[in-house]
Amino acid sequence: MPLPLIEQADAAPEVRAVYDDIKATRNVPDVNNFWKAIANHPPTLARTWESLKEVMAPGALDPLVKEMIFVAVSVTNNCQYCIRSHEAAVRRLGMTDAQFGELMAVVGMANETNRLAVGYQVELDERLR
Amino acid sequence: MPLPLIEQADAAPEVRAVYDDIKATRNVPDVNNFWKAIANHPPTLARTWESLKEVMAPGALDPLVKEMIFVAVSVTNNCQYCIRSHEAAVRRLGMTDAQFGELMAVVGMANETNRLAVGYQVELDERLR
Amino acid sequence: MPLPLIEQADAAPEVRAVYDDIKATRNVPDVNNFWKAIANHPPTLARTWESLKEVMAPGALDPLVKEMIFVAVSVTNNCQYCIRSHEAAVRRLGMTDAQFGELMAVVGMANETNRLAVGYQVELDERLR
Amino acid sequence: MPLPLIEQADAAPEVRAVYDDIKATRNVPDVNNFWKAIANHPPTLARTWESLKEVMAPGALDPLVKEMIFVAVSVTNNCQYCIRSHEAAVRRLGMTDAQFGELMAVVGMANETNRLAVGYQVELDERLR
Amino acid sequence: MPLPLIEQADAAPEVRAVYDDIKATRNVPDVNNFWKAIANHPPTLARTWESLKEVMAPGALDPLVKEMIFVAVSVTNNCQYCIRSHEAAVRRLGMTDAQFGELMAVVGMANETNRLAVGYQVELDERLR
Amino acid sequence: MPLPLIEQADAAPEVRAVYDDIKATRNVPDVNNFWKAIANHPPTLARTWESLKEVMAPGALDPLVKEMIFVAVSVTNNCQYCIRSHEAAVRRLGMTDAQFGELMAVVGMANETNRLAVGYQVELDERLR
Repeated sequence: MPLPLIEQADAAPEVRAVYDDIKATRNVPDVNNFWKAIANHPPTLARTWESLKEVMAPGALDPLVKEMIFVAVSVTNNCQYCIRSHEAAVRRLGMTDAQFGELMAVVGMANETNRLAVGYQVELDERLR
Repeated sequence: MPLPLIEQADAAPEVRAVYDDIKATRNVPDVNNFWKAIANHPPTLARTWESLKEVMAPGALDPLVKEMIFVAVSVTNNCQYCIRSHEAAVRRLGMTDAQFGELMAVVGMANETNRLAVGYQVELDERLR
Repeated sequence: MPLPLIEQADAAPEVRAVYDDIKATRNVPDVNNFWKAIANHPPTLARTWESLKEVMAPGALDPLVKEMIFVAVSVTNNCQYCIRSHEAAVRRLGMTDAQFGELMAVVGMANETNRLAVGYQVELDERLR
Repeated sequence: MPLPLIEQADAAPEVRAVYDDIKATRNVPDVNNFWKAIANHPPTLARTWESLKEVMAPGALDPLVKEMIFVAVSVTNNCQYCIRSHEAAVRRLGMTDAQFGELMAVVGMANETNRLAVGYQVELDERLR
Repeated sequence: MPLPLIEQADAAPEVRAVYDDIKATRNVPDVNNFWKAIANHPPTLARTWESLKEVMAPGALDPLVKEMIFVAVSVTNNCQYCIRSHEAAVRRLGMTDAQFGELMAVVGMANETNRLAVGYQVELDERLR
Repeated sequence: MPLPLIEQADAAPEVRAVYDDIKATRNVPDVNNFWKAIANHPPTLARTWESLKEVMAPGALDPLVKEMIFVAVSVTNNCQYCIRSHEAAVRRLGMTDAQFGELMAVVGMANETNRLAVGYQVELDERLR
């Protein structure tokens, strides 16, 4: 019942142009199902790709750090597709098993202590206001 | 109505020992309200500090990256206390305004694309299974 | 290991009465698995159906808008069953692909900007207090 | 800018009837702001009170356990109003500081291990299917 | 400790251009604090405004419906700033108190039934796959 | 693509020691996949087990109540693995179908009323401050 994936061969020209840019930018032979799904709404495809390309590009933070932050959010939100696809990305960027282990440990502790701070209704320290 | 903060002067010896370790490890004159709140349940104080000390220590990931991941989770969970206290931590560790801007941009895009992946019920690509 | 689905034939009279009302109200030949699952606790079945029937009925908002709001929440909460069953409902009520695309776009942007507002700890404008 | 609280004196008869039932059931002199806020939509007031009265009544679980579960959910969702009002309820029902400490500890650990299970994408054990 | 709000008078030209476009598009004398906060990272300001302008524009869904969906997500995520600012927007677009009451009722029921579906681990109906 | 499960036979000595303690403490012949997954990062395995053993032990709250709280959080967070494994635990501890029904009903109502409180932006009562 989910919408059909739009394959390159069946895509309208403006969709195909986005696919081509994704493939060229990431140097991959085909785009992920994520893009083929949101291509059902071409303006969403174009806008999301433009935004993601800009946000995930090397800048003040390096791409590996950005992808780890992406994984941390996706785990907190429990988005299986996003975890799998961005975990693949961090692996390609060189994340080691030890780094993944520490990433998960921080995500776990942050989720735990977030609830302790909320549950104890901790008042902001003077110096944090 | 939240539980009272436990100040060092009023603290039981096992609480005081944790406070002393926090102050020594972080080289700060006093502990944050978070610790003074959870000190109402001394086993939670001791366990949480031992865990956080271990998880946030330098390792395969450096402390600045770990703190940024912590902020990313706290923003996704909307924990004001955690955002303020860990943002202070990343600032102390040298995070620039440009890095903060990119951190927030990634957190925002991850939260957006998480919902697009879920909303379109995107099927896992063969190669991600 | 989930509880068994309660089929009409095996249902206690008070469960059967609810099933009959669902089928009559929605003009469907059988009730969804959701109802057959919560029928394991008959008071939950009766209360949930009464509430949902009241809340989703035409009123100041029309049913299509209500179902779209339902989908928006379900996507944000990542409830696959709810997305699939309420997406089926919005389709029956006439939602077009273009409307679905815009619905998902708004859900995505709301999730993104929610985190930007939280992450930047934006203070309420005077006029919004 | 939030809607005004509806005080008993200004309330329509069907709202006043609900207020009276809340006060009688809970043996309190006035209803909480929560009820005065949702009274802006009388059907929501009536339905929510009927549901909550039924769900929180003594049954197979005792009211203290039910209120602790309510607090656990409210902390996980970060609803300050709900935490404060239901924490007051569990205190009235006799919850000790030690019980509150353990409640928060369980909520914290559940939130942590939920993310570890999701982050490691743990496959269901044969015997849990 | 949050970053300072960037007022128009102190803004760099590319920030001022975005402010001018927001004011012209929405026909308002000043931009909200949200924009003044994210203006600390000009690329985020420009990208977020371009995206939001496109997504919230009249299209297959009308602006009032889009704003209600936005509020539904913001309530589910518990973003106070977003609730207040978008509730102001839906009011300006003509939402009545009765419509607001029904909107909240749907958001509440969706959040409840999402958890019932998840908690009972309801299997997808054949016809929903 | 998830990390492989670490079986006892292939486990490093410090992992095996944790497995042995889990099996002895819980009186089970084998550990769940959860432990075999996080064993990919031995410090996370050891720390998580030590914490969970302490937190879930009988204390001011009995283990059945603790497990029900755990299930309530896991349902709210939509963690399928956690729901299934902790539901198995509450069943072993004697939870009846009626208790499960009431547990789910409370979780559902808490999630609903959390959003009503947030959506109506209910101000804290004087006596709850």
